[in-house]
Amino acid sequence: MSDVATLGQALRAGDRAALARAITLVESTRRADRLAADRLLEKVLPAAGGALRVGVSGPPGVGKSTLIEALGLRLTGAGTRVGVLAIDPTSSRGGGSILGDRTRMIELSRRERAYIRPSPSGRMLGGVARRTREAMVLVEAWGAEVVLLETVGVGQSEVAAAGMVDQFLLLIAPGAGDELQGIKRGVIELADVLVVNKADGELTAAAGRARDEYGAALRLLRPKHAGLPSPALACSAMEGRGLDELWATVLERDAALRADGRRDALRAEQSREWLRTELREGVLEALDRHPAARERATAAERAVAAGELLPPVAADRILSALLDGD
Amino acid sequence: MSDVATLGQALRAGDRAALARAITLVESTRRADRLAADRLLEKVLPAAGGALRVGVSGPPGVGKSTLIEALGLRLTGAGTRVGVLAIDPTSSRGGGSILGDRTRMIELSRRERAYIRPSPSGRMLGGVARRTREAMVLVEAWGAEVVLLETVGVGQSEVAAAGMVDQFLLLIAPGAGDELQGIKRGVIELADVLVVNKADGELTAAAGRARDEYGAALRLLRPKHAGLPSPALACSAMEGRGLDELWATVLERDAALRADGRRDALRAEQSREWLRTELREGVLEALDRHPAARERATAAERAVAAGELLPPVAADRILSALLDGD
Repeated sequence: MSDVATLGQALRAGDRAALARAITLVESTRRADRLAADRLLEKVLPAAGGALRVGVSGPPGVGKSTLIEALGLRLTGAGTRVGVLAIDPTSSRGGGSILGDRTRMIELSRRERAYIRPSPSGRMLGGVARRTREAMVLVEAWGAEVVLLETVGVGQSEVAAAGMVDQFLLLIAPGAGDELQGIKRGVIELADVLVVNKADGELTAAAGRARDEYGAALRLLRPKHAGLPSPALACSAMEGRGLDELWATVLERDAALRADGRRDALRAEQSREWLRTELREGVLEALDRHPAARERATAAERAVAAGELLPPVAADRILSALLDGD
Repeated sequence: MSDVATLGQALRAGDRAALARAITLVESTRRADRLAADRLLEKVLPAAGGALRVGVSGPPGVGKSTLIEALGLRLTGAGTRVGVLAIDPTSSRGGGSILGDRTRMIELSRRERAYIRPSPSGRMLGGVARRTREAMVLVEAWGAEVVLLETVGVGQSEVAAAGMVDQFLLLIAPGAGDELQGIKRGVIELADVLVVNKADGELTAAAGRARDEYGAALRLLRPKHAGLPSPALACSAMEGRGLDELWATVLERDAALRADGRRDALRAEQSREWLRTELREGVLEALDRHPAARERATAAERAVAAGELLPPVAADRILSALLDGD
């Protein structure tokens, strides 16, 4: 039996070490590992898809990790198996992971029923999102019933996260406008639930006001799902208040979205978009692997660098030649 | 003589209306327009490349447009032809342009020697950056000696902008940390010059302090160009103070980077990266245009949406079949 088959079996049997090894395999950039990863993913695919996938996003310092740990402890305490993943668009120069060793979720990481994957470092955005999608398949095959996907940093990562979860929670701090918090235009509209965190101590009243204001704003926006408005809630992840209500809201929405087939439709569309992303991201590697195509691409690259040929024209020629078997 | 040839001639003769029509052509998503745009770009390419390309980035409200207009008025006043372009990652849901009609640069837009292009609306990030690169070729062929490229919004757009300019100016407001201002990690490292704007009125002293602090921070970071540290300057775009010094710094850096060939090396690498982007972005359109490939892709898409096939595996198969002529 091949290594991949053994790994797949251990993974499906709920072995956390096997899960960690499997994710490392899909994160590898070596071609041989990539082929093994593809075989592994194919093998475990039938066991995936069973989790409730929830994205947790928001500006730095808003308490995403605290909320995830608090939710994760509640869920594992109730017997639910939980996977925590991250999308982390690392610095475009110099690389380096933001989360480091993720010591903030230390209590949750000790739970048998939890698996926490620190985000891969040193990758570009597209790459990280690709590998996170695959990690989600593996975590589900391992048996996760809930996957919590944290986005780190502001920008494109929220859009990527919203494209791979069933529900997207957007965390906001009380007492500051969303522009000031670095929340990109359009991100509010992605939210299934808007969560005003830090409703504790002297911020309690401000959090209540923010919840009401965002609630009113959400009612003015076109709802993400017709007939199922996105609510705004206040909570304190630190003190654990409002979390039961938050999770009940998530479960209620999940039931509603499953009942009328919208969750399945959403996932099907996400899969199609994932395929489009893979084609876009994979074409360069594919060109590089194929001798004749690589030769043509290299010649075009030289002409482009010399300023003799414009990149869109060069790309059009390379792709057309490829497709017409020229 | 074809329309494209006429348009190219008018453009190279310095006709602003022709430039506007040419940019509209490259922004079109119709295939026929795309082919005409490719021909036009090829025709004018020899006349492009002559401008000093400067990116102007920074959080909302920091005064990017004010600075661009002030610089643009100084440059056109001195007889320099200036083009102003924008990279604008519009909302992922709902679309819509941010800049509207860009009335803020109304004085500059009246100058004969200036051309200001509002950013295209309703596009995804990748698409906007692609068309902005092409607009830069057209603006240079029109005769721009300086191109000022504004980024709007936070996130990936700064990285895209830094990938298509000779120098990248990062604007900062005094008196707030860069995290609070929504400046993404890694963006500081992209700066050729860090500009603390709003050094006027009661913020003058705070701007001076911020300039000193960022100056110290930049000396600790690995410099963007070895041996050519990125300075921090303070200025007031509104009152016009510090702008001569800023522009002198940009020209000095340009001279240094040209003298040792680094500017040409940078542009060659940017062109190669542009080609890679075009290949990634173009592959879906190419697949769609080619009947056999489209048929294969559609079948894969169905299997993927049904959860029977994993997108990375499907993409690998489609691309391999394509390249092996299978």
